[in-house]
Amino acid sequence: MSKTVLITGSTSGIGKAIAEGFAKKGYNIIFNGLETDGPVIAQNLATAYEIEYMYSAANMLQPDELRSMVESAISQFGAVDILINNAGIQHVSPLETFPDEKWDAILGVNLSAAFHLTKAVWPSMKQQKYGRIINMSSAHGLVASENKSAYVASKHGLIGFTKATALEGAPFNITCNAVCPGYVHTPIVEGQIADQMRLHNMSADEVVQNIMLAKHAIKSFVPIELVVNTVLFLAEESASAITGIALPVEAGWTAQ
Amino acid sequence: MSKTVLITGSTSGIGKAIAEGFAKKGYNIIFNGLETDGPVIAQNLATAYEIEYMYSAANMLQPDELRSMVESAISQFGAVDILINNAGIQHVSPLETFPDEKWDAILGVNLSAAFHLTKAVWPSMKQQKYGRIINMSSAHGLVASENKSAYVASKHGLIGFTKATALEGAPFNITCNAVCPGYVHTPIVEGQIADQMRLHNMSADEVVQNIMLAKHAIKSFVPIELVVNTVLFLAEESASAITGIALPVEAGWTAQ
Amino acid sequence: MSKTVLITGSTSGIGKAIAEGFAKKGYNIIFNGLETDGPVIAQNLATAYEIEYMYSAANMLQPDELRSMVESAISQFGAVDILINNAGIQHVSPLETFPDEKWDAILGVNLSAAFHLTKAVWPSMKQQKYGRIINMSSAHGLVASENKSAYVASKHGLIGFTKATALEGAPFNITCNAVCPGYVHTPIVEGQIADQMRLHNMSADEVVQNIMLAKHAIKSFVPIELVVNTVLFLAEESASAITGIALPVEAGWTAQ
Amino acid sequence: MSKTVLITGSTSGIGKAIAEGFAKKGYNIIFNGLETDGPVIAQNLATAYEIEYMYSAANMLQPDELRSMVESAISQFGAVDILINNAGIQHVSPLETFPDEKWDAILGVNLSAAFHLTKAVWPSMKQQKYGRIINMSSAHGLVASENKSAYVASKHGLIGFTKATALEGAPFNITCNAVCPGYVHTPIVEGQIADQMRLHNMSADEVVQNIMLAKHAIKSFVPIELVVNTVLFLAEESASAITGIALPVEAGWTAQ
Repeated sequence: MSKTVLITGSTSGIGKAIAEGFAKKGYNIIFNGLETDGPVIAQNLATAYEIEYMYSAANMLQPDELRSMVESAISQFGAVDILINNAGIQHVSPLETFPDEKWDAILGVNLSAAFHLTKAVWPSMKQQKYGRIINMSSAHGLVASENKSAYVASKHGLIGFTKATALEGAPFNITCNAVCPGYVHTPIVEGQIADQMRLHNMSADEVVQNIMLAKHAIKSFVPIELVVNTVLFLAEESASAITGIALPVEAGWTAQ
Repeated sequence: MSKTVLITGSTSGIGKAIAEGFAKKGYNIIFNGLETDGPVIAQNLATAYEIEYMYSAANMLQPDELRSMVESAISQFGAVDILINNAGIQHVSPLETFPDEKWDAILGVNLSAAFHLTKAVWPSMKQQKYGRIINMSSAHGLVASENKSAYVASKHGLIGFTKATALEGAPFNITCNAVCPGYVHTPIVEGQIADQMRLHNMSADEVVQNIMLAKHAIKSFVPIELVVNTVLFLAEESASAITGIALPVEAGWTAQ
Repeated sequence: MSKTVLITGSTSGIGKAIAEGFAKKGYNIIFNGLETDGPVIAQNLATAYEIEYMYSAANMLQPDELRSMVESAISQFGAVDILINNAGIQHVSPLETFPDEKWDAILGVNLSAAFHLTKAVWPSMKQQKYGRIINMSSAHGLVASENKSAYVASKHGLIGFTKATALEGAPFNITCNAVCPGYVHTPIVEGQIADQMRLHNMSADEVVQNIMLAKHAIKSFVPIELVVNTVLFLAEESASAITGIALPVEAGWTAQ
Repeated sequence: MSKTVLITGSTSGIGKAIAEGFAKKGYNIIFNGLETDGPVIAQNLATAYEIEYMYSAANMLQPDELRSMVESAISQFGAVDILINNAGIQHVSPLETFPDEKWDAILGVNLSAAFHLTKAVWPSMKQQKYGRIINMSSAHGLVASENKSAYVASKHGLIGFTKATALEGAPFNITCNAVCPGYVHTPIVEGQIADQMRLHNMSADEVVQNIMLAKHAIKSFVPIELVVNTVLFLAEESASAITGIALPVEAGWTAQ
């Protein structure tokens, strides 16, 4: 019987690529995302790879919706074997004028949603003595950049949550790990390029070369396929003894 | 003229000891705490050390109250030169039954309050080109323990926020650092002992020796004076080139 | 055309398992090891998987022998595409009586040999603009244990060397990463069990449960296959943007 | 009675400044350094601060000389209460042409000498149940830079050794910590500027601004007094619960 994976934010960007990675391997997928054409994106992927699927528009800031999504998933597939906390938002602003509501939203989506979903899937993972939880953190879960205080705090917090979850999951064959990508060319990065252009009065190319890839030792974006492969690697049944780690996929960012 | 330090949660525990450390050196102090006898505690300390002071009962979960406290402090003393984000709460519970409202409160007090206060003191620190911000994180900002998912997440997040703040403060002679104590014998630890006794059905002594000090390489509590001295060391004007660090004061906890 | 991998210490333990992992994928392999039956072990593996191979008894403490091994490999296969610095030795002793010659040997085998081999393969990797270097470090490259001062120093040093190599390799598509296993049930661990039995006057089972697995959050040895899979993952051509990292495979050791 | 501190490489640079810091506090000092006028430098400092002292020209690469230095120190002062492993050398070169003999010398001076000295002072520290060991590592003990493979490996290794020593010292009130400075304006940095000028064909100012301070978030050298104060802080009797840590004094280098 196929395993079931729930991936938040999986109708665009890295999340969608991760979904496609699991789809190729025949997993049942719970898609999630706020895009209006989310249901179509999900259906198309499911059709293309002939997998069972579910779609939910659960809002990461609404714990009730998160719980409902998990309940529906368990009801339809019997369990959520793998949970990928991928949904994330960003806002670029100096600390001094960082909007309070952006701070709250970033912590809510990037960190608290992972808590609510982990808590929701926990009883069934514990009962079946199997679970893989993968939290999409960031190089910014390990180090900081200017003007990203909320994002950096949320992604560090997510790594802390990952370790705590790993320890509690250890007796039940539930592993929990974080993946820390550098700059991947996705819609969220497109948005950051635009933000940084405004902040620094730079061209898009200058932002990419002087700000973003300045952090990379390897001067190119991280291939999205590599992020997907990393998630698939950690999701394997055989990866049972990797837990509580933060795995950098960031072109040498934190080595220097 | 004396420098001014604002210390959250300074009417008990580590915060009160930190306040006393600064009082001995003649700083003006903004005390803060929710204890009903907070004003008396503040007054007694101020009288004993002949310092100028202010007391605020600002609630860490109320950004408006935090802003008001900073405004009053600046109005009274001209600036907040040093900000110690010390107030913290804990809750011990398995993830599966961890109350949502405890998660929110822990993130609010331990992490978001530091954001609101840092943002509030920033313009004056930036303008005077001087500031020292010290965030009381924890060994749990570096590693996890079971049943403390929210605390671990919040304290990791606080270290991330520390790094981001340090980078933004660098051009303005504002440093920001985190201190990561191990187990200090304070009221919050007393509470944890009680919690762990219930959870594990152990005696107080068993909790201390088998759970808490099990984490320490040195088998005793961290002296509260050492935590105070560490904060004072980082608060020095001469510590200008230490920034963005997480300084462990934890008896060898994370070395192993 | 098949890629070529050189694996030090590959006639026993983890190294041999890694060799088998690459053999299954059809790589050419340079075997290395000091076992007297090393040539037979290599030949048998090569025959079983129908791969091209070479065997060298190069001693890790003899830079000349290491250079000769690489020269022979390049002469036979045209290049060393992947270098796995796996050979390692251990000695368990209190610092006070730690033999100087053991200190030197451990640094020589675990750290300096990686330098000599990396330097030797570098010109051809650089010229072909392709290389994967994987250094077998340890959880002890991240944290310490008592009575293993030399091993801990060498494995931390190897992670430092990994980062430096990664940065220098970045412009040439040469990645360099470290893998940090916890306790895997291998001959070297068998030896440690015996050493610790003597030191602590414990039974083998007590050593395993009370000392070794005490460090793991998951109370079992790390499966050797998982270490192999991790190495294979990092060795992939597609893993081009993972570099300079230390990847823990240690059952939650450093999460706590 | 005054405590006694042995500081390697204390007749120039950071080591000499550390010696002056301890001299001001009245410690007995064992000076060490290879400068021909080392004895005069030591005598002048001792006279200026009216302290007891000893001078040794022990070569860091000669374990016998290190042991003799410690024996003489114990014979003269009764104990070495504090050991500062400060002597260090650097060599800047691409990995491909990094001289083997430089690799060996750097590991010997920066890492193995700390082992030999720690081992030599250990019995007396253990017997008196008091010791403070401080290893001068570097920001390069935490992250890497190009063309410094040996230095980075040695300084990471030294942090590993620090942790192992801390764990073994824990029952005996012996703490061991590492200090990780960024760029301090010392003779060794002068030499690096010259090396980098050659390598990159840059002016001295370009090397300072574009290469060295490029790593700092705060764009100035680390004041040598701050490094001294950090060492003094860790050397305090009251710092008993800080052990096994690596304390960055590096202007925000590793926060980003």
